[in-house]
Amino acid sequence: MSFSITIIGSNSAIPAHGRHPSSQLVTIQDKHYLIDCGEGTQMRLHELNIRASRINHIFISHLHGDHYFGLIGLISTYHLLKRIRPLHIYAPKELLSIIQLQLQAGQTNLCYEIIFCPLDPHKSERILENDDITVDTILLKHRIDCLGFLFKEKKRERKVIKEKMDAYELSFDLVPELKKGFDITDPKTGNIIPNKELTTDPLRARSYAYCSDTAYNENMLSAIYGVDLMYHDCTFDDAAQLRAEETYHSTTKQAAQIAKLSQAKQLLIGHFSSKYENLNSLLLEAKEVFENTLLAIEGKIYSIER
Amino acid sequence: MSFSITIIGSNSAIPAHGRHPSSQLVTIQDKHYLIDCGEGTQMRLHELNIRASRINHIFISHLHGDHYFGLIGLISTYHLLKRIRPLHIYAPKELLSIIQLQLQAGQTNLCYEIIFCPLDPHKSERILENDDITVDTILLKHRIDCLGFLFKEKKRERKVIKEKMDAYELSFDLVPELKKGFDITDPKTGNIIPNKELTTDPLRARSYAYCSDTAYNENMLSAIYGVDLMYHDCTFDDAAQLRAEETYHSTTKQAAQIAKLSQAKQLLIGHFSSKYENLNSLLLEAKEVFENTLLAIEGKIYSIER
Repeated sequence: MSFSITIIGSNSAIPAHGRHPSSQLVTIQDKHYLIDCGEGTQMRLHELNIRASRINHIFISHLHGDHYFGLIGLISTYHLLKRIRPLHIYAPKELLSIIQLQLQAGQTNLCYEIIFCPLDPHKSERILENDDITVDTILLKHRIDCLGFLFKEKKRERKVIKEKMDAYELSFDLVPELKKGFDITDPKTGNIIPNKELTTDPLRARSYAYCSDTAYNENMLSAIYGVDLMYHDCTFDDAAQLRAEETYHSTTKQAAQIAKLSQAKQLLIGHFSSKYENLNSLLLEAKEVFENTLLAIEGKIYSIER
Repeated sequence: MSFSITIIGSNSAIPAHGRHPSSQLVTIQDKHYLIDCGEGTQMRLHELNIRASRINHIFISHLHGDHYFGLIGLISTYHLLKRIRPLHIYAPKELLSIIQLQLQAGQTNLCYEIIFCPLDPHKSERILENDDITVDTILLKHRIDCLGFLFKEKKRERKVIKEKMDAYELSFDLVPELKKGFDITDPKTGNIIPNKELTTDPLRARSYAYCSDTAYNENMLSAIYGVDLMYHDCTFDDAAQLRAEETYHSTTKQAAQIAKLSQAKQLLIGHFSSKYENLNSLLLEAKEVFENTLLAIEGKIYSIER
């Protein structure tokens, strides 16, 4: 099962240096999930040859414009392209009336359904669960209510070794119990056969945490502990720590410190201030604290391997 | 005095073929006026090396998203860049609450003033007058209330010929009267000196009409009669006339017919449907009816000469 992140926009509020406001695509098992939707996201998806029609779930972290001003355009384009499938939007509750007011002003009755899930800004909660994944919110620390999103593959069942089943001449009716990890009794001999002899460990469940926008926030460590890949706010360099505090953003070293303390396997830094044209010095600073750091480069796909 | 139009976005609602939603810049005597502001306009201005900070007046024709979804982003960027000068917005009244709701959701108190002028959708009116120009609305015919904008240079005063003044030994106190076109009495001889002997005709006042989005609409002819340059909705080709009627847009030949009947000097067609990748056939069709037609090409500057 594939699990990857495509960066659509990696800049902070003011678009600059060819970088765009926040948006990224999480692709898991051929399903597309969009996180944040800054202005121009629909054009960026087109440029990156991503079929926007395949997106059925959109997650909005907070209501600063660089994270959602592109949503209404995408919603409108879906309508013009005669979308049929419902669109699930997970966002702060105020967004619904903003969308409705704009549709109303244009006298647009959408030809598809928006299923709006208002997010509770005060508690972490499970907002999506399907066959493949769960998505939980993460409480971030920003100037206005802001949530991160933790995408987790579901824990798979144990894998039954067909050859061993044949050797013991076991019925396949026993498979569900074996997958769950139970030992079984050999119907012929009455002996217990340990589960481990008949199965292998399930594939490891991978995870991705989107943590932007946020000030340095150790409170979220327990929620993201051991995550495979963490995208973290990195608006400023280390020297601009005061500015980061004032604006409820993070510096390179703060992002890296969160990755280190949470024992993340890999860190992806983004939401860069427009003051940085070249990002290499940001990367070097973060690496001083957490070696396995990557820059979020627009158009680049970051796969999470097992 | 310069008078030019820069096309920022020339496409209809769905961005395609590298074309963008509606927006254009009218530049008169170093003043920038923005008409419509589709999604991504701020990025497009940046790409075209147009300093957005020089825009003090924004005109929104109607509240279909492809004409205003980029406005809130531009407003926000001005705030982040610590704009000081007030921003004048001329738009359907519903836009004000859309802007306010979004600023409120982001807890943003703008650091500059928005001076909002709600437009009356039912009558043509003068909405701006300064030393250089007047701007009047034009009643268009669209699925929702929609206004065009007529930019007109102010009629200049007659030009006094200094050499003639000197020859008659006339006092410069007479200049204001001469500029207005009055004959004067020679203080020395008591003879009447005809104005025409002392002045030359003023420079011709130029005009530009923005007429998008609209169905074929002869009712607006009187308002735009003799305009120098007319931008007209040309969403469809001639074969798609039925579709144009259904959607309250115009075809190539309808746009050209309006230009012809209004005795416009030049026609600029735009707001192209995404179904046309190549626009040359649209141009040829329009030219069959009105020879002096141009395609609105993004990034191109169209000067209105005297």
